[in-house]
Order: sequence, then structure tokens, then C-alpha cells
Amino acid sequence: METIILKLGGSVITHKDNNELKAKTDVIRRIAKEIKAARKDNEFSLIVVHGAGPFGHKLVTDYKIKDGLDSGKDIEGFVRTHNSMEDLNKIIMDIFRAEGLLGFPVQPSACIIQNNKKIERFNTEIVKELLNLDNRIIPILYGDMVIDKALKASVVSGDAIITYLAREFEVSRILMGTDVKGIFSEDPKINPHAEFIEKIDNSNFDKVLEKVTGANTVDVTGGMKQKLIELKENLSGIKIVIFNAAEENNVYRVLTGQNIGTTIEI
Amino acid sequence: METIILKLGGSVITHKDNNELKAKTDVIRRIAKEIKAARKDNEFSLIVVHGAGPFGHKLVTDYKIKDGLDSGKDIEGFVRTHNSMEDLNKIIMDIFRAEGLLGFPVQPSACIIQNNKKIERFNTEIVKELLNLDNRIIPILYGDMVIDKALKASVVSGDAIITYLAREFEVSRILMGTDVKGIFSEDPKINPHAEFIEKIDNSNFDKVLEKVTGANTVDVTGGMKQKLIELKENLSGIKIVIFNAAEENNVYRVLTGQNIGTTIEI
Repeated sequence: METIILKLGGSVITHKDNNELKAKTDVIRRIAKEIKAARKDNEFSLIVVHGAGPFGHKLVTDYKIKDGLDSGKDIEGFVRTHNSMEDLNKIIMDIFRAEGLLGFPVQPSACIIQNNKKIERFNTEIVKELLNLDNRIIPILYGDMVIDKALKASVVSGDAIITYLAREFEVSRILMGTDVKGIFSEDPKINPHAEFIEKIDNSNFDKVLEKVTGANTVDVTGGMKQKLIELKENLSGIKIVIFNAAEENNVYRVLTGQNIGTTIEI
Repeated sequence: METIILKLGGSVITHKDNNELKAKTDVIRRIAKEIKAARKDNEFSLIVVHGAGPFGHKLVTDYKIKDGLDSGKDIEGFVRTHNSMEDLNKIIMDIFRAEGLLGFPVQPSACIIQNNKKIERFNTEIVKELLNLDNRIIPILYGDMVIDKALKASVVSGDAIITYLAREFEVSRILMGTDVKGIFSEDPKINPHAEFIEKIDNSNFDKVLEKVTGANTVDVTGGMKQKLIELKENLSGIKIVIFNAAEENNVYRVLTGQNIGTTIEI
């Protein structure tokens, strides 16, 4: 049976644009319904990883703890950032439960230890056991603030969690839900004439790299060029789809294998 | 520095008597304030472990999953029981945050695997690191439903978590907050003339065992006799205080070393 990782970017599920600690509950509810509909027609195991949006980034910025903890105030920032991520996760969990999905949160800060912002240990056994138990169970993880051996605490991004899980499990597809259609040569929010790139594989990888240089066109840390290089390094061989999860029915479409967004196979 | 484990029994923090999924928010807030006051005057590391009350027991009973999972419906019971425990934990976390305490939840089902209802593996590294980082951080764990190698899933009680943690860490005192004064020769709710036992040590242990035979006088699974035998087996050498956390100021009193309840040193 296929194992799919679905990423719900912070821009999809929170009011990232105006930096408010507010979840887009209607969007989350619609996505929950689409997951439910997709499961009705298809058998697959699903892991959901959600981003933070302001629930994480605003606190990390306000407390100035992006690069680790120094003062006593920073300790407070670490705890409050995690607390805030639980706020967001709880909203999502409650909606999933109301929609009849068997979402099971797995608190990243309870099973991940980092070293200088990189995952050093990640006890993935629970996620594995949950998936083995019954494929209706949906483990749900999220970007979080975790213990860091070098920096006391640091941010683990949803993307870092996805990369780690994808290498541990036999994941067939990673579906990255963002608020843009996929990868463009430039930011389509700035230049409406930016070229949309439907497929990236080894035949056009270098050409695409040149095109997107400097562009920051999806919801990721760092530029798109850097992101693609990392994907090739870490997730080579796994099909990745970057798609617009803010658009109705797209989560259903992508889960059921319809071709939307940008497909990356490198 | 002293490390203390404080147990908040289900009977203290929930409406256990009428089996309602409702937390006693006023009691929790009062306890949070008392913890804060105690920390002002004394330096100690604190781990809080809370019980489930109806948030756990009602679901485990309704889904009939006390002895493991069989059917597809049981899988739902497992997930919903954990979801429900997160409901209760979130209420506590939110109150602790509002009162300025640095509570950091550590989801038991994300770091514990059981085998036939006994803890087989418990990744306690995160709890350890949180305490090392800053003694203002209060790791908060709770009775939960976790993966079980033999039964698919099973309940891990707050008491089992406390026993495991106490043996891993240098814990000086375990403070068991219940809704009765301590240990009595009989259930004081049934017989108001039951004899209160102030101190249990090796000199009177056997005599007390005889007295309490069959009595089920504190908020624990199984009779008090069985409980005392387990305590002697597992927590010998650690000072345990069983006290009434439902009574105002008692959490402050016991945290600051005042003599209340029943003290057990065996």
C-alpha cells in the first residue's frame, strides 16, 4: 500500500500574510473533508505534516530565538513557541476529529533532538507503529521548537521532518500543499507573467535551476534554487508534488493521483 | 537541587464523580498559582504528571478497550481516547501558561511503547534535557493510551509514568495529589471513623498492610494493599507523600516541605 506524506504549509492553514495567530479553520475543514473523500475511493497510508505560520515564526521572531537560546527570556520563548504550536495543532486535530478522521498527533519536541539546527535523533518508531496498526490512523506532525544539543533549543521545520520520515519509510509521494500553483521561474505574486514549470526531472533539472535562481516561489525557507538542490540531495527517487492546497478540491485531486502543480522526480 | 514529581489525580482535576468530560478549571488554576508561589520561595525542579478521570476512563470503558484492541472500532477508541487526553492536557497547559508557568507537555504516546500493559521503552531523554535546560521548565506528562506490542494499544497510567521517571531520575519526593487526606485504614468516604495513617515506614509497614487490606482509599488502580506492595517494590528509598490536593493551599504546603497527608518512606 502506498504511503503518502501530505504537507500543509503555514500559508495554507494560517493567516500568514497579516502575521495573526489565527488558523484558517474553514480551509482546514475543507481539506479534512477532501482527505476523507480521497480515502473513501483509494487505499493509502497518510502522514500529515503541517507548518507553523505565525504560530511559530511570529514567536521565534519576537523572542529572537532563531539561532538558539541565551538568556532566561529565551527559555520562555522556547516554551511559549512550543505551546503556540500546540494551539495550532489542537485546532487542526479538533477539526479532523469532528470530520471523523483518525488524526493522531505525534509531538515532534517529544521525539526529536537536534544538534545545531539539524535533526540528530528522531524516534520514528511510534509513527511507524501507528501506520502499521491501521491505515486509517493519520499521524500528524508539525514544525516545532525542540531541544538542541548545541543551541539549547532550535526550530525543526515541517520540511526537515518530512525529509527525515521519507528516508525512514517507504514513501511513494510527498505532496507539498502551498498557496501557489507550484514552481515558477519567478514569484508569480510579483510577476504575473512568471513561467510555470509543470515537471522537473533529470532532463531539465539544470535548466530549471538556472531559471529559478534567486526566486523564492514556494513556501520554503531559503530560495527555490537552494530548495531544489536540497531536494535532489535528500529526496532523490521520491515523487514530490508542489501544489496549491488553498484551492478547493486540490487536496482531493492530488491524493487521488490527478496531475496538478509541479511534479518533481529527480 | 531537589527534583520533585507532583501527581495531580483525575479526581482532583476532573468531574470524576459524575463521569463528565469536564475539567475543574478553578481547581487547576488554584494549583497553578500555588506552584508559582512555592517556586518563588524555593528552588526545585518539578515534573507534573496528571491523571485522566473521565477524559480517559470513560472512553476506555465505552469503547471496551481496557484489555487491548480487536476490531476496527477499537482503533477508533484508541485514537479518540488519546485525542480526549489531549483535550484535558490542553486545558491544563493553557491555565499554566495564563498563570505564567513554563509548562512543557511531553506526549506519552509519542515516547512510550508498552508490552502487555507494561512500559517496555520510554524515551525519557527529552524530559531530562528540559529539566537540565532550566529548572523553570515544568515537563507535564499524563496517563495516556499508547502503542502496545502485544495488545496493539493499552493504557499507561500516570502512576506507571511516575514510577518509571522516579527510577530514571534522582527524584527526592513524589507528591501524590488526591481528593482524600491520605491513607486510611478504611475508605473515609464510607466510614467516617476510619483511622488516618500519618506515616508509613519499615517499622509499621506490615501492620499497615494488615489494616488496609481490601480498602481502596486513594485514587489508584487496585486496592491499597496491592498499591503499597508495589510502592515498596518500585519506589523504595524515595519519599512519597499522599495528600489532598483538592484542599486549598495543600499543593503549596507540600511543595514547600510542610508535613501534610500520609508520608511513606519504605
